[in-house]
Amino acid sequence: MKIKSILGGLAAPNGFYAVGVKAGVKYKEKYDLALIFSEVKAKAAGVYTRNLVKAHPLLLNMKHLADGEAQAIVVNSGNANACMGEFGDKAALDMAVETAKKLGLQNEDILVASTGVIGQPMPMEKIIAGIGKAAADMKALQGSAPDSETRGSIAHEAALAIMTTDLVPKEKAYELQCAGGTIKLGAIAKGSGMIHPNMGTMLCFITTDADLESEVLDKLLKEAVDKSFNMVTVDGDTSTNDMALVMANGQSGVRPQGEELQGFAEMLEQACMDMAKAIARDGEGATKFIEVQVNGAVTIADARQIVKSVCSSSLVKTAVYGQDANWGRILCAAGYSGAEFNPQGANIYLNGLQVAEDGRGIPFSEDDALELLKKADIVIRIDLKDGQENAVGWGCDLTHKYVDINADYRT
Amino acid sequence: MKIKSILGGLAAPNGFYAVGVKAGVKYKEKYDLALIFSEVKAKAAGVYTRNLVKAHPLLLNMKHLADGEAQAIVVNSGNANACMGEFGDKAALDMAVETAKKLGLQNEDILVASTGVIGQPMPMEKIIAGIGKAAADMKALQGSAPDSETRGSIAHEAALAIMTTDLVPKEKAYELQCAGGTIKLGAIAKGSGMIHPNMGTMLCFITTDADLESEVLDKLLKEAVDKSFNMVTVDGDTSTNDMALVMANGQSGVRPQGEELQGFAEMLEQACMDMAKAIARDGEGATKFIEVQVNGAVTIADARQIVKSVCSSSLVKTAVYGQDANWGRILCAAGYSGAEFNPQGANIYLNGLQVAEDGRGIPFSEDDALELLKKADIVIRIDLKDGQENAVGWGCDLTHKYVDINADYRT
Repeated sequence: MKIKSILGGLAAPNGFYAVGVKAGVKYKEKYDLALIFSEVKAKAAGVYTRNLVKAHPLLLNMKHLADGEAQAIVVNSGNANACMGEFGDKAALDMAVETAKKLGLQNEDILVASTGVIGQPMPMEKIIAGIGKAAADMKALQGSAPDSETRGSIAHEAALAIMTTDLVPKEKAYELQCAGGTIKLGAIAKGSGMIHPNMGTMLCFITTDADLESEVLDKLLKEAVDKSFNMVTVDGDTSTNDMALVMANGQSGVRPQGEELQGFAEMLEQACMDMAKAIARDGEGATKFIEVQVNGAVTIADARQIVKSVCSSSLVKTAVYGQDANWGRILCAAGYSGAEFNPQGANIYLNGLQVAEDGRGIPFSEDDALELLKKADIVIRIDLKDGQENAVGWGCDLTHKYVDINADYRT
Repeated sequence: MKIKSILGGLAAPNGFYAVGVKAGVKYKEKYDLALIFSEVKAKAAGVYTRNLVKAHPLLLNMKHLADGEAQAIVVNSGNANACMGEFGDKAALDMAVETAKKLGLQNEDILVASTGVIGQPMPMEKIIAGIGKAAADMKALQGSAPDSETRGSIAHEAALAIMTTDLVPKEKAYELQCAGGTIKLGAIAKGSGMIHPNMGTMLCFITTDADLESEVLDKLLKEAVDKSFNMVTVDGDTSTNDMALVMANGQSGVRPQGEELQGFAEMLEQACMDMAKAIARDGEGATKFIEVQVNGAVTIADARQIVKSVCSSSLVKTAVYGQDANWGRILCAAGYSGAEFNPQGANIYLNGLQVAEDGRGIPFSEDDALELLKKADIVIRIDLKDGQENAVGWGCDLTHKYVDINADYRT
């Protein structure tokens, strides 16, 4: 089925609004608090970091999503609200309570997310004031019966509000024509550092006006995340905070089934993939986007393990930064991935140029290789010739700028 | 039992000689080929990289060590002889054959090691000429009945010859007084990049004049490696080439048993720990040495997993480089290590200063923290208060210089 890109971000689906405000959490003149709201209660699902250390908002959401429903999401950047003990639990709950109060909703229908530095107390006065302002903006926006263009341009501020060291906002929307009408889906994400395949690994919020059971939504989200966010890495660290949340409010009036449900699944997957790739492309300090393709593995798990290992290798990442066709580091990273394969069967290609055959070097033009490696997008393909399974994942190079950013983040 | 540091490196133990020559493998004026020789056949043992992709010399050594004996080791830097198919197998074998011929030994008693760039053909003409020169030097040295100081200073050239991006040679020797005489042990190592806990991860060669069964030697080496090389990380990559080899030629006339065998095990462990720490301290681009101590874990495996995860975290490593007391990243890295522990019980200390208690931040003086983090040696201690098990490991910071070195290594 045909999936079309459209404008409008999170507010593209019927019945959704999103706003961003400047609450001054860490910086004065930055959008840093977002509110995402559905006019009616929505089915909702979440996927959370696998880190044993989970930030306080994640623990709260697990409770609030027990019934598979939600109506609003409040998000701040500038402070992660992680590792703060009871203070942190209370801070997350207070954010939900304040949002519920200001929007006239139940506490349990509010989801909370935070991103930023770990282990510092949330400046709750600023956060509470920010929620007040965002809720007022939201009501004014709804009251003004805005056209879709206005809703979209205001929703863009939510995409800005969740950014930390991201250089560009990540926002997309899509539509799918079904027999009974059009289903729309919007997504925003933030990434940059601490992005590593073990879910979580970033924040992503998705809205859709499809009419779906929460069990179906949950299953589809998990599948989409496995192929997207779980296959992207920036620096190998897995954050305490990261999650993907989706709300489906049914306001399209279409309940997709059969082929249409499959079409919806593809649209959700497309959104997650687009967000994941945008995160890799905007990795901290990145100058190059890396796509790793593994073909011909015996199992999907093996293929994915090799992809992740190659994407995560500091030596591969610095070689790409240095435009060095150092395929030995690629095979080496595959070798220590833990996946089963025959190293004597691997062919390796860099942006289409074959540099290794059957696990050993072959002559190639260093000039041609350099020309290809000058591109901003680098595709590393490993053909194992062992089996039928494939996987693909994304990452970025490791640069001086990455060190700059992370040597001096907290202070 | 008392272990004493002595001079003499690999040639400190009775009956051992080592030389280094400039074979011009990659650079003209660098020692790049080493020969380590025992006057009599020695018991020998090896531990190899766990990378599925193993360099050709490792595969050869596994065969040659099937009988637990060896008499010489030939090592080159400048080329890894990895991922080169049949050419690579032949190159490794030819190195052994040539060394055996020139020293009048059996092929099976020669062990081979290579380190450097992966996937490029060994310049065999230079290697063969280098072996000839090294063997001639070795014979001349033996014939001159040198004093121990001369043997030691020539053995130092072997330590130089195995360096790649290392800035300092890594070489130590020790002695242990036993009832029947003195046992000596010498060690050299190279490390720098691609150092990661999964054994191998570097080259280390150890000589000793203890009289030991090869099974005992094998067991003791594995135990020592688990506590040392398997607990050091520079960049998280595990090389195709790395190994530790030990030769014990019995020329002390002492066969340690009981308490003396325990003393020997401690000396071997000490040598491996000293080499491992020296490797971390000399990590590519490192400005700081990091020791991570985990106390109070339920199992040793958990403690080690957390140590490795914290040592490997790019975010922890850049924070240390930036002298930033960002303990949240430390707890976060512990959290995604895969180890079981209660994050709400963890205390964290940076060079003795407590920065977190029961998994959450506590107030501390940023000025004090900065003063402590200005030191070249940083001790990160995590007290889990869950159980009785401890582990310690080593690493280094992630710096601009690391990126410099690795963006442009091959070309």
